[in-house]
Amino acid sequence: MGKPSDQQLSRRDLLRIGLTTTAAGILTGGLELALPAPAQAQAQDPLPSWKDGAAKKAIFEFVRTTTDQSSAKFVPPEQRIATFDQDGTLWVEHPMYSQVVYCLDRVPAVVKAKPELANVEPFETVMSGNREAIAKLPTEDLVKILAATLTGMSVADFEAEVGQWIGTARDPRWKRPYTELTYVPMTEALQYLRANGYKTYIVTGGGQDFVRMYSEKVYGILPEQVVGTAGGTTYGYDKNGRPFLTKDPKLLLNDNNAGKPEGIHLMIGRRPYAAFGNSTGDREMCEYTKAGDGDRLAMMVLHDDAQREYAYGPAQGLPDTKVGTFTQALYEEAKSKGWVVISMKNDWKQIFAWET
Amino acid sequence: MGKPSDQQLSRRDLLRIGLTTTAAGILTGGLELALPAPAQAQAQDPLPSWKDGAAKKAIFEFVRTTTDQSSAKFVPPEQRIATFDQDGTLWVEHPMYSQVVYCLDRVPAVVKAKPELANVEPFETVMSGNREAIAKLPTEDLVKILAATLTGMSVADFEAEVGQWIGTARDPRWKRPYTELTYVPMTEALQYLRANGYKTYIVTGGGQDFVRMYSEKVYGILPEQVVGTAGGTTYGYDKNGRPFLTKDPKLLLNDNNAGKPEGIHLMIGRRPYAAFGNSTGDREMCEYTKAGDGDRLAMMVLHDDAQREYAYGPAQGLPDTKVGTFTQALYEEAKSKGWVVISMKNDWKQIFAWET
Repeated sequence: MGKPSDQQLSRRDLLRIGLTTTAAGILTGGLELALPAPAQAQAQDPLPSWKDGAAKKAIFEFVRTTTDQSSAKFVPPEQRIATFDQDGTLWVEHPMYSQVVYCLDRVPAVVKAKPELANVEPFETVMSGNREAIAKLPTEDLVKILAATLTGMSVADFEAEVGQWIGTARDPRWKRPYTELTYVPMTEALQYLRANGYKTYIVTGGGQDFVRMYSEKVYGILPEQVVGTAGGTTYGYDKNGRPFLTKDPKLLLNDNNAGKPEGIHLMIGRRPYAAFGNSTGDREMCEYTKAGDGDRLAMMVLHDDAQREYAYGPAQGLPDTKVGTFTQALYEEAKSKGWVVISMKNDWKQIFAWET
Repeated sequence: MGKPSDQQLSRRDLLRIGLTTTAAGILTGGLELALPAPAQAQAQDPLPSWKDGAAKKAIFEFVRTTTDQSSAKFVPPEQRIATFDQDGTLWVEHPMYSQVVYCLDRVPAVVKAKPELANVEPFETVMSGNREAIAKLPTEDLVKILAATLTGMSVADFEAEVGQWIGTARDPRWKRPYTELTYVPMTEALQYLRANGYKTYIVTGGGQDFVRMYSEKVYGILPEQVVGTAGGTTYGYDKNGRPFLTKDPKLLLNDNNAGKPEGIHLMIGRRPYAAFGNSTGDREMCEYTKAGDGDRLAMMVLHDDAQREYAYGPAQGLPDTKVGTFTQALYEEAKSKGWVVISMKNDWKQIFAWET
């Protein structure tokens, strides 16, 4: 991206702005600590949902090498940064990014507040409930929906609206809160890295303010460690002279593709030692991470488990859906550059916390 | 600010973008910990450079109230955020922001690389060394100097240039590295707040990338906890296909005035419990901080010590210099709203580490 305001959001970017939560009960708001966990925590397998294999081994090796003071590749604790894409990496992104579901769900309230929109596109189509027609809305219409539902209100109102939605919305397949659709192996990886002094960040194409609403509760990641697609705010005063921030439609950071390393520089200020993604949108983040000296880890989640979750993407000769595209070229690049591909089917014993 | 790219930088903003370091030897890169310090650390006076008085008492009271679990105003550790302006609050800003000195010092190298600039304004004036003429350069010329010295190069080259300058530059009055011009009482306040679970942030009108170069060593504040005036970067590749980031002239965040709460929302995502500043540029940050519920602390450093440091600003009937304006209106607002004014002359026993 580079110059956000010059940028056009692609349709995929827009869909990507929709995020949601997962892994509800597993993590209960545990704080990030920059200190090693007590020794007994390491005695058991810290990644019990991972099958033995190259992926699990890569994580163990990386942590061992970078935290062993006698290792030539030892990383001082203050430099231990690990970044995680969210949609498709930490939780389900198929068939639609949860934040897009949120935006569509918010349209009735927007139309109620501004009845003149009821007969204006794209609001009329969204209000019709015709999913096929909604799925075909052109990019400029999606922009209008995102702008109408994510900007123009105070930060406090936005947070109240998102909080309400997260507490009540259910995904269509499992009929569970989106916050229960997180991947147990990835929450284990987050915890394991934190237990070894890594500061974990979400670096998402989704909306920064949206993800911050649940990241602490769901992933144990504090708001200040969420980097996402971000718009500006405007400081102003209410009628009582009390200051508040209003969310602007102005885009400051489109946190996808090249925008991920750019966002990491803006928000964190240094190169990660580990990066986790699942699509072409995470390619540059992995590339940037691996370009650092010492031992760096890049991992890519492959959605190849149609039964327990979903299987999609050209890397497997499967359809390219609108979410998290994993191309054949990306697959080959990952293999050639030592980025570790995680097979959900073969590397994960368990995917969701509620599986029996 | 709100819409950074629509914004014009004022002359004061531009001057403000110049920062520097201070308090060299005092802090030696101590890491931020979100955990309470050992009990014995609290036994001694944690603010020995502060005289007994309202300012010192306000800090103690704030920490006691917000960290005492039996207090109705107890703040959970993960919410303990304290923000500090830098220039004039943590270190000397008079007579010129250190980052502006840096930019002027960089001009010869820029002209050497592009000899065609030698006879072009404002570079010709800067190269002349005529301080009076340099001080009179109009805003649009300062913009050109900042753009030429802070953008257009790779992040790695910028960091090397700043690192070199910080190691060698000396301030004109004390002939010391700028990094030794930090205020001991403020570094004590930073340490005291951190020892009580507060995450300390710099929120500066200065350049984010510039301040991050020394914040850890000088203040014990990690790069990811520096919020400053920020431009974009562009991700690209060198001739060997290695990725790198180039600093863009595009302004994303003008972190002054209303830009401070806006920047805090962007980079931290929640309201601070304590804010420290010294000028009208910090007014909105203090206002935003105090508008939160519970116990919130806002403090303003008044430069009233002409002998040990400097005295300036209309609040004392003194000249309004180009740095850190403390107006009479701000002084009255602070007094009426319970923002604590810190008198450098009366509240601080010692200002610099090297004072005997």
